[in-house]
Parts: sequence; structure tokens; C-alpha cells
Amino acid sequence: MSEVIAVDVGGTSIKSGVVDRAGRLSREHRAETPPTGADGAAVLDAVVGVVEKLRGPHPPAAVGVVVPGVVDENAGVAVMSENLAWHDVPVGAVLAERLGCPVAVGHDVRAGGLAEQRVGACRGVANAAFVPVGTGIAAALVVDGVLCRGDGYAGEVGHIDVGHDLPCACGGQGCLEAIASAAAVTRRYAQRTGAGVSGSRDVADRVRLGDAVAVEVWDEALDALARGLASLVGLVAPEVIAIGGGLGESGELVIEPLERRLRSRLTFHRVPRLVPAQLGDGAGCVGAGLLARDLAGER
Amino acid sequence: MSEVIAVDVGGTSIKSGVVDRAGRLSREHRAETPPTGADGAAVLDAVVGVVEKLRGPHPPAAVGVVVPGVVDENAGVAVMSENLAWHDVPVGAVLAERLGCPVAVGHDVRAGGLAEQRVGACRGVANAAFVPVGTGIAAALVVDGVLCRGDGYAGEVGHIDVGHDLPCACGGQGCLEAIASAAAVTRRYAQRTGAGVSGSRDVADRVRLGDAVAVEVWDEALDALARGLASLVGLVAPEVIAIGGGLGESGELVIEPLERRLRSRLTFHRVPRLVPAQLGDGAGCVGAGLLARDLAGER
Repeated sequence: MSEVIAVDVGGTSIKSGVVDRAGRLSREHRAETPPTGADGAAVLDAVVGVVEKLRGPHPPAAVGVVVPGVVDENAGVAVMSENLAWHDVPVGAVLAERLGCPVAVGHDVRAGGLAEQRVGACRGVANAAFVPVGTGIAAALVVDGVLCRGDGYAGEVGHIDVGHDLPCACGGQGCLEAIASAAAVTRRYAQRTGAGVSGSRDVADRVRLGDAVAVEVWDEALDALARGLASLVGLVAPEVIAIGGGLGESGELVIEPLERRLRSRLTFHRVPRLVPAQLGDGAGCVGAGLLARDLAGER
Repeated sequence: MSEVIAVDVGGTSIKSGVVDRAGRLSREHRAETPPTGADGAAVLDAVVGVVEKLRGPHPPAAVGVVVPGVVDENAGVAVMSENLAWHDVPVGAVLAERLGCPVAVGHDVRAGGLAEQRVGACRGVANAAFVPVGTGIAAALVVDGVLCRGDGYAGEVGHIDVGHDLPCACGGQGCLEAIASAAAVTRRYAQRTGAGVSGSRDVADRVRLGDAVAVEVWDEALDALARGLASLVGLVAPEVIAIGGGLGESGELVIEPLERRLRSRLTFHRVPRLVPAQLGDGAGCVGAGLLARDLAGER
């Protein structure tokens, strides 16, 4: 089969590359996401440009494009994507027309979960969750071997009420993501200390040095994550939970202490293994490639 | 096709009947569940007796049996059923041998959810939840048209931590079921008043009369239910949630006030419709019949 091209459109950058049968990403390319309007025209132009750059002499067998927000995979429509200011953009139809090949449209986190389940940390597991903990927190849920979509609304573990009184950007209160995302950990440490930290990795460094405020902020994040994941475990019973995103990169400060906290909250449940995600920030792109390969009829 | 026989084995009674193609239950029969041991022998004898009583001159095309607890539907094994004191009982293999016909084994709540989705309150909806609120609270989750099983562990919404400090029978604390099940509502009202109430329907009657303690206990239950259901909505995004069980019977005191509370907790989520379940305490039996019909190859 000729190649498939994968594109992961994020709020700040567009990652792309070629994905082979084994889910390996090559010829990686990264560009800034252009300023965008509700119709998505500038971003779709950029996606077409990226595909033209990566394609060989023949049209690709298929292209996979993943975006954040609420995505209706069946219809190929980005229903609502705050980061891109998109509403009801028919990504699949527009790109298929312009690229002259089949285009699979997916959700960045669910595509990442598909990638982790097929070729990453959850390989061979029928019930799994991929939970990137970055700017926000979401989950890709695989139940009985099938990725849960819920018409694009499934997996919003970041907005489970975990019992604090902080407001969340979504308009709610008590959301997991408002206390435990990599962004929240960074912001909360900076607020309490006045120190300039550039990301959760900086906070992690201070945890390792025994900085009391860093330890406190980190522990509060882990407590909240354990509570949110316990709800997830009760509802969809993953055997493996792969933690990704910025916080997942500080693996030894996350996996074991989080697993301990989670275990103490479970009673009759099946206790999942916690593992670091394997595909890093390429997960969405690999997933986009797998969706494209599926669409091109390889599986 | 010849008929299928459905059996719903509960902790106190065994319900059974014949289920037709349209999911209609007839020739209903109800018997006490006999005292049971870990191997389940006495209960399985009773199930065989019930099937012999209901069957016609020909062997049934299939029998469907549903039980509570952790059930591995694929293997036909009741992994762990507290109410029946069962552990790893190979229900399917034992009954198929004794009855001389195919036997489908299911979980009572998930089978009830299947029934509500195919022929009840969630008919025609691809993403739905059936939540019986009775002695305990559980959920049958249908995502993208498929019932979530998670090897028998999915759907435990009753043990989501909703942020109170009451202990739960499961050994945990803060569980939804400890404050919002029909049994919890009854118990909590009796504890606060010393009044003898025989069930949540009695408490509902007092809510209607304006009894302040009844209103308080009822409101606390609804607040907790809204919080648990909000987590469920975030993770699996049902379009419809059907409330069943003892509390569901007091529909007008539950559906509208619960929907209002749930709605106030949701932000960007898809807001589900709340409806009363339609099949009453026959849901599990109808579901058992549908599983049997599926097994007999009708669908």
C-alpha cells in the first residue's frame, strides 16, 4: 500500500509525518498553527500545505487528521474546538476534496489512546485508559477492545468533580483539571511562592529537592488524580492506565505514588496497573496515521 | 424459532418467564432464592427446576440466566456475587449440560440495560445509561451502541466518591450508594427520626407531605446522585439516562429535580435526558431473554 500521512493539529503547533504499518512515525514535521477563525480556513490551508510537503509522487493512500475538542469521527466534523476557535468545521469533506484522497478525522486524545493501545503502553490490553495530563486532562477509554467515542463527548475525566472549591476554565467548580493538570500544578506553585516556573517539570525538580510548597502542590495534584481515576476505574474498569502529557514525563514522581493513592481508594474493583505512556507527544500523530491506515482498508 | 426462557437470579427471589421476539415477558414465575453456598449448587438446582416448569414439550432454543455481582459474560462465569455468596461459579457450563440447550449468562443490571436500550426507555439511543437505584446503585452503560462490560467490572457508579464521610458496605467511604440508594434513603430517614419506614416509597410519601427530615434526606440523595451522574456523563456521554429501581418508582420526586441538579453541574458536556426506566423489576428478566435470543442466533 502506498503511504499514509498523519497530521495532529494542536492549538500551538501542527505535527505531521508518515506512519508505517507498525505505527512508526517518520519524516516528522512540525509547524506553528496559524491564527484561525471559526471556519478553520487558515488551518486547513496549512494542513494541505503540510500534506503536499510530505507526500511522494503518488497521492497518499489516505490522510489522518486529528484535532482537539469535540470531534464527531463518523461525520468527520470538528464540532467544537476551543483551542482552534472552530465550530462545526467539516474537516473530512473539505480535506478529501482538496487532497484527492480519503481523509480520516479523529480526536487528538482518542487517537493517542488508539496508538497507545495498538503499539504503545497498552498494547494487547482490551480494557485500557490513556490519560494525558498536560494543559488539560482528558482520557481515551478502550472498553472491551473498542475505543469509546460517545459521539465525540466521551472521556472528559478532567472535569470530574473531585471535591475542591477552585473554579475551572470550563465554568465549573471542583474539576480535576483545575488542580491536577500540568498547567494547574505550575500555576499553583507560582501563585504560592511568587517564583517563576516555566512548567510542571520545574515544579517536579523542586519536589526532588524537597521544596515544601512544591511537595504540597504535587501531593494535592496526585490526591485529586487518584480520586478522578477511581471514578474512571469504577465506571469502565481499565486493566492498564497509561499516564501521558507533561506530568507523565516526570514518571517516577507520578506513577508509583499515584498507583498507591488509587489503590487505597479501590475496594472490590479490579485494580489497574499504572504505566507511563510510551509514545510521548507523537501519540496523536501515530493515532492519526493508524486511523488513516484503517480507512485505507489495511486492517 | 422455539421459545427462550429467561431467569433473573437475585439475592431474595428468582424471577423467570418466557421472552418473545419483541422482548415481551410472559408466563412469569417468581420463587424464593434458596439458601446458597459458594458453589451455587442449590440455586442452580432451583434454576433447573424453574426452566423445567416453564418449558414446553421441546427443549427451549436457549436459556438466559442473569445474576448480580461480577459476571464474566464471555466465559459464562459468576466471578463474585456477594448476594449469592458465589465465587467463580461456571453457571453457563453447568446449566448447558443439565438443560441440554445453549445458556447465555449475563449480569442482572447490564441485562436490564440491554432490555431498556432495545425495548424500553432508551430504545433507539446509541449512548445510554440505565441506573437502577435500589438496594445498591449500579449502571449499565451503552456507548456507541455497545454495552460496556469491562470483563464484568464496568458500571460501578454506586461506588464513586461523591464527597461525604459516610462509610460504605464495600469498605470505602464517600460512595454514592451509601447516601443515595433506596436503602440508604430509608435507613437515613429512620436513623434521624426513629420512625419505622419500610422503604424509600414511605420516605417519598413523607416528602410529599412536607416532612422536613424526609425532604432533607431526599435532597441529599439527589445532590449526591447528580454528582455521581455528572462524572458518568463526563466519561461516557449518554444521551439518555433511565433511572430504575426503588427510587425510580417515585418518578416525579426524582426525574425533574435530579435533571435540574445534574444540568447545573454540566458545562460544555452534552446534557442527557433523564427518564424513568420502563421495564420495572422485569428488566433483568427481559434482558436475560434477549441474551438467550441473541445466543440462539436470532439477531
